[in-house]
Amino acid sequence: MVWGDGKEMGDLTPEDRFLRTCRGEEVDRPPVWLMRQAGRYLPEYRAVRKGVSFLEMCRDVERAVTVSLQPIDLVGSEAVILFQDIFTPIPAMGVDLDFAPGPVIAEPLRTAEQIAALGVPDPRESVPFVFEIIRTLRGALEKRRIPLLGFAGAPFTLAAYMVEGSGSKDFGQLKRMLHREPELLRELLSTLTEMTVGYIDAQIEAGAQAVQLFDTWAGLLSPSEYREWIAPTHRLIFDRVERRGAPLILYVNNGAHVVDQMADSGADVLSLDWRASLGEAAEAFGDRVTLQGNLDPCALSADREKIFDWVRQMARDAAQGRGYIANLGHGCLPGTPVEGVRAFTDAVRSLAG
Amino acid sequence: MVWGDGKEMGDLTPEDRFLRTCRGEEVDRPPVWLMRQAGRYLPEYRAVRKGVSFLEMCRDVERAVTVSLQPIDLVGSEAVILFQDIFTPIPAMGVDLDFAPGPVIAEPLRTAEQIAALGVPDPRESVPFVFEIIRTLRGALEKRRIPLLGFAGAPFTLAAYMVEGSGSKDFGQLKRMLHREPELLRELLSTLTEMTVGYIDAQIEAGAQAVQLFDTWAGLLSPSEYREWIAPTHRLIFDRVERRGAPLILYVNNGAHVVDQMADSGADVLSLDWRASLGEAAEAFGDRVTLQGNLDPCALSADREKIFDWVRQMARDAAQGRGYIANLGHGCLPGTPVEGVRAFTDAVRSLAG
Repeated sequence: MVWGDGKEMGDLTPEDRFLRTCRGEEVDRPPVWLMRQAGRYLPEYRAVRKGVSFLEMCRDVERAVTVSLQPIDLVGSEAVILFQDIFTPIPAMGVDLDFAPGPVIAEPLRTAEQIAALGVPDPRESVPFVFEIIRTLRGALEKRRIPLLGFAGAPFTLAAYMVEGSGSKDFGQLKRMLHREPELLRELLSTLTEMTVGYIDAQIEAGAQAVQLFDTWAGLLSPSEYREWIAPTHRLIFDRVERRGAPLILYVNNGAHVVDQMADSGADVLSLDWRASLGEAAEAFGDRVTLQGNLDPCALSADREKIFDWVRQMARDAAQGRGYIANLGHGCLPGTPVEGVRAFTDAVRSLAG
Repeated sequence: MVWGDGKEMGDLTPEDRFLRTCRGEEVDRPPVWLMRQAGRYLPEYRAVRKGVSFLEMCRDVERAVTVSLQPIDLVGSEAVILFQDIFTPIPAMGVDLDFAPGPVIAEPLRTAEQIAALGVPDPRESVPFVFEIIRTLRGALEKRRIPLLGFAGAPFTLAAYMVEGSGSKDFGQLKRMLHREPELLRELLSTLTEMTVGYIDAQIEAGAQAVQLFDTWAGLLSPSEYREWIAPTHRLIFDRVERRGAPLILYVNNGAHVVDQMADSGADVLSLDWRASLGEAAEAFGDRVTLQGNLDPCALSADREKIFDWVRQMARDAAQGRGYIANLGHGCLPGTPVEGVRAFTDAVRSLAG
């Protein structure tokens, strides 16, 4: 990775720094944002959220825009990610769900009929608020030159919830389908892949400057099952999406055992969790993908000094690669101290040339 | 690994096959047993368990012996593991707990006073039933020459529950202690390590022919945190236990990112989950440790033929190493079809010479 002198680079805007890093171009220092940076750990988020359900928040353009923007000034985040849920496009496919607080599917998908009945409506019509939020955010961010990220849930993770019915320790129902009725799961993943491509396309069209695909449950499978069931969905998505210059980021939770397959997905950026070694990933794949991550969100409860040490260590580990975006290894937790998050972004800014 | 001709080897007893495999000596084929083989997936287990709480079952020598032995004839398992819970020795340390169904700690450990107050009584006096079960099982198994395994929970996993209070997705309280009051966690791990050494010693003394250390939550930490917090507890235990010829097995759930550190623990056998690559582990460490694992328990719901394929593949992958014990990557789940478990053990037997 090339970290030039700040002066040499001119004054990089957060947008330039982020997009150049995703493409492996020279920057003055790593950009920084945090997964789930707009969340319950912020009192200001809780104030906006008060008296409104999570689903209502997602559909309320004004509130969603407000909380999306909060992390810039409150914690010093240098990229904004659309406030939304990975399940946003699912009800329009014909699947009723609620949050309690995780997603709960009213009628888990277990039959060929249920899966064949799934629709893939145009997201511009079925969830127009998503694109209105994106357009409003782009307008609000234009002056400050802060990049806007869109995101989508990956097919396997969506399927996991849709088959299981909710979060689960073992996802036994999902794996039962995988082993006993593989053709059903294949059909479901295929439909969700098609939906996801259209959903990401529409986000980029509306103004998302990069998009992160979240595969929260992909780490449930062995390397060979991941190769059979998950890797093809990523490749199809990254192959088919009309990038229009927007880099695509792949996040796999608990995916230390499949980093090599993530590197072959066609994503521009790999977002790793803390189990994966940034140093090993940078050495093996850093010539062709930018890395993002990977501090354990729980580590933000440590002292400012320790957080600075970890950030410096991550940057050193990732330095062999073409680019590095400082981030957490998973979403910021509700109990996270705000000063820990601030220490994290301050530490990244202190890395400047 | 050396798999000799069955005739050449004479008739290996299950005990010989298991112990020779642990030591990396020539055998006719891999031995087989399953984690949590005495469990709710067996109707015969549920019959014995009926009307008795889990804790009562653990303390009832007759019932515990009965269910420990069931898997031999019911599913063809070739090793018996003591029926007990990793929390068995904990109440005598002064920590009240219950099962609901996972362990729930009445007063989670959060202060120096609580941790300093923990006792380390002689397990022969505090949990004599464990050793009575072991002695009874050895008597019952002697004629059939089936090996008996003891087991213990690893300090980090016990500490995780004791600090958090119960199972958890993120173990935020545990990690908070790790980051904010590291000296408390260090003290707790030190006490639990001392307790575990004595508990394993007493099991071997009573007749356990091998002992497996279960570190269910060790996979929560990054490689560098594992190195600081977990690896030393394993090394101390494997260094201090009086083996008396009994091989020691280390199981780390979700530990694909720390297999190299597991290999340096001093364990004779590494038990891997399905995320780890048996082939890579055999190539890298198979000259000095025997491998055990690592089929996803959920895969036992597949067809007999597929289960046979996977077992053959695992044996091929592990074949570069000094020894291989066929097993699952995690405990057998309550909904597992009994015929799937039988297919698994049959498949291993079909590997002969």
